[in-house]
Amino acid sequence: LHVQRRQQAQGMARPSENEIIAEIFAPFAGEAGLGLADDAACLTPKDGHDLVLTCDTVTAGVHFVADDPAAAIAAKALRVNLSDLAAKGAEPLGFLLNLALPQDWTREWLEAFAAGLAEEAELHACPLVGGDTVKILGPLTVSITAFGAVPHGRLVPRLGAQAGDVLFVTGTIGDAALGLLLRRPGEKPAWAQGLSQKAREDLVSRYLYPQPRLALREALRAHANAAMDISDGLAGDLGKMLGLAGMTADIAFAHLPLSPAAGEVLAQAEELAAAIVSGGDDYEILAAVPAQKAASFERQAEAAGVAVTRLGRVTAGKSAPIIRDKTDRPLDLATSSFQHF
Amino acid sequence: LHVQRRQQAQGMARPSENEIIAEIFAPFAGEAGLGLADDAACLTPKDGHDLVLTCDTVTAGVHFVADDPAAAIAAKALRVNLSDLAAKGAEPLGFLLNLALPQDWTREWLEAFAAGLAEEAELHACPLVGGDTVKILGPLTVSITAFGAVPHGRLVPRLGAQAGDVLFVTGTIGDAALGLLLRRPGEKPAWAQGLSQKAREDLVSRYLYPQPRLALREALRAHANAAMDISDGLAGDLGKMLGLAGMTADIAFAHLPLSPAAGEVLAQAEELAAAIVSGGDDYEILAAVPAQKAASFERQAEAAGVAVTRLGRVTAGKSAPIIRDKTDRPLDLATSSFQHF
Repeated sequence: LHVQRRQQAQGMARPSENEIIAEIFAPFAGEAGLGLADDAACLTPKDGHDLVLTCDTVTAGVHFVADDPAAAIAAKALRVNLSDLAAKGAEPLGFLLNLALPQDWTREWLEAFAAGLAEEAELHACPLVGGDTVKILGPLTVSITAFGAVPHGRLVPRLGAQAGDVLFVTGTIGDAALGLLLRRPGEKPAWAQGLSQKAREDLVSRYLYPQPRLALREALRAHANAAMDISDGLAGDLGKMLGLAGMTADIAFAHLPLSPAAGEVLAQAEELAAAIVSGGDDYEILAAVPAQKAASFERQAEAAGVAVTRLGRVTAGKSAPIIRDKTDRPLDLATSSFQHF
Repeated sequence: LHVQRRQQAQGMARPSENEIIAEIFAPFAGEAGLGLADDAACLTPKDGHDLVLTCDTVTAGVHFVADDPAAAIAAKALRVNLSDLAAKGAEPLGFLLNLALPQDWTREWLEAFAAGLAEEAELHACPLVGGDTVKILGPLTVSITAFGAVPHGRLVPRLGAQAGDVLFVTGTIGDAALGLLLRRPGEKPAWAQGLSQKAREDLVSRYLYPQPRLALREALRAHANAAMDISDGLAGDLGKMLGLAGMTADIAFAHLPLSPAAGEVLAQAEELAAAIVSGGDDYEILAAVPAQKAASFERQAEAAGVAVTRLGRVTAGKSAPIIRDKTDRPLDLATSSFQHF
């Protein structure tokens, strides 16, 4: 109440639900959103295309730090969904926003969140088309459902890797997990002391701002037998994708694409190799591409401006994939995938 | 930890995220859900149809009572979305579930929730096709995105009421708001003492189990100029629907459809008329139908098994709709719509 009174005194009274919709969200909503003045969105599907739908929830204290910038929270909430669309080879069409506001929300925060979301929607050509804003007796929670289109029958499945396929991964691995270690309130890991300012900033930025690899969608559709986005750590997600197909892999840590910042970290603390391959939040794409198409995939990815790296080959087998360190020993990945519970 | 240990001793250890998906949700997922083993759902749109998308969040302490039965929470979370599809004249196609579990969740609770959800999905022919399950450092929160189809261009809009249209409402009004008053922990309103056991049960049931009027969808598409579902109270939502079109109405409380249970309440406490028209959670449909189609709408609604009642006529005007009591005085609706914040 105190905060609310102060805001009112400053002309920053909290908007009502109708004002939130009409003044804060509707101005940047897409056409299918019907001005956010109806019970639902209405979309005319593209001829000859399938609809791809995905949803993800992020909540303060679990998926982001409550005092992360509002625009960064908005960006992450949307991007983790766009990353799923990218992995399926889909073109984004729009998204719906479920926003649960904690009791101490302010107009200023909400406007910054909406501005960030509007910018993201524009950047990724994925408009807001609907939503629901509610009060929560708990932490800020954002659930987004994003949807997109693929030509009929052309969704790139998670199940489909074949023996002999070349495993590719986009971007760099482990940065976000290291960024989270740096970002956690109250923690100052010893290895952080030796890092350059730039490395610290790069890692935190990768944690705050996942990069959905939407530009890769056509290359994936044209080449990949299987793909998924890496949200729970490379090791665990590789195991998921290959396990579905009765496949496995044996790859070298030395072949993983690491950023200069992650390289700095490893120079300080070699043992963080395990965190790099098992930490979450990469939001890179893992793909299995038939060997005879691998060079073409690389060319098309390069043309699309997305870095891709060969990790190794898919092989038949039921055991979990192995990632070997420079002495050829398997990394200890006892906690090989981010555990949500 | 104590609870978790006890569960483990009883063979009720909490499942991992992968087990939740594979063992609890996938068994009743729809075909478009790809076994819940991919990054996204994939749906081939029906030829000649538009897609209708809606989402709603319900969270403990705001939209339901935390100790409501798990199956009732599941039912409500889905039904409030289906009610939006019904109001737009849409046939449900499927839904995505964002489930944020509080720290003390148990396998038993989750299985009851999933069983309730499976039953609802079957009942309304609206399969689960995707989702995300996360931990929340707060109350149980369920965000559902439901989607459906209407023949191209035939979504029943909220904006479209015309002067002279007959206003219809489905079912009965106010029961859920009264049920919530009875259900609130620690409250025993004086008027509740004089109610029959059956009336109490009926009102609470209407609060727990909204009735999405999906059977009315064809009648709405064939007849209505405008429709919406009433979630924030009849008075406020009538004002929203008519206000969009520059219209208003002047109707008699005596014309509202009330259940026998609500009648019992009014006999005890006449002043609850205001709660009946301004309380939330009705999930009935309000529709504006051209006068010359009104009789046909009534016949088709009856054939579909959905009760509809004439409330009055739409008139041109910018003032808020008026609802008159039996002495012809406007009800005092200062708080005429459920306020979310």
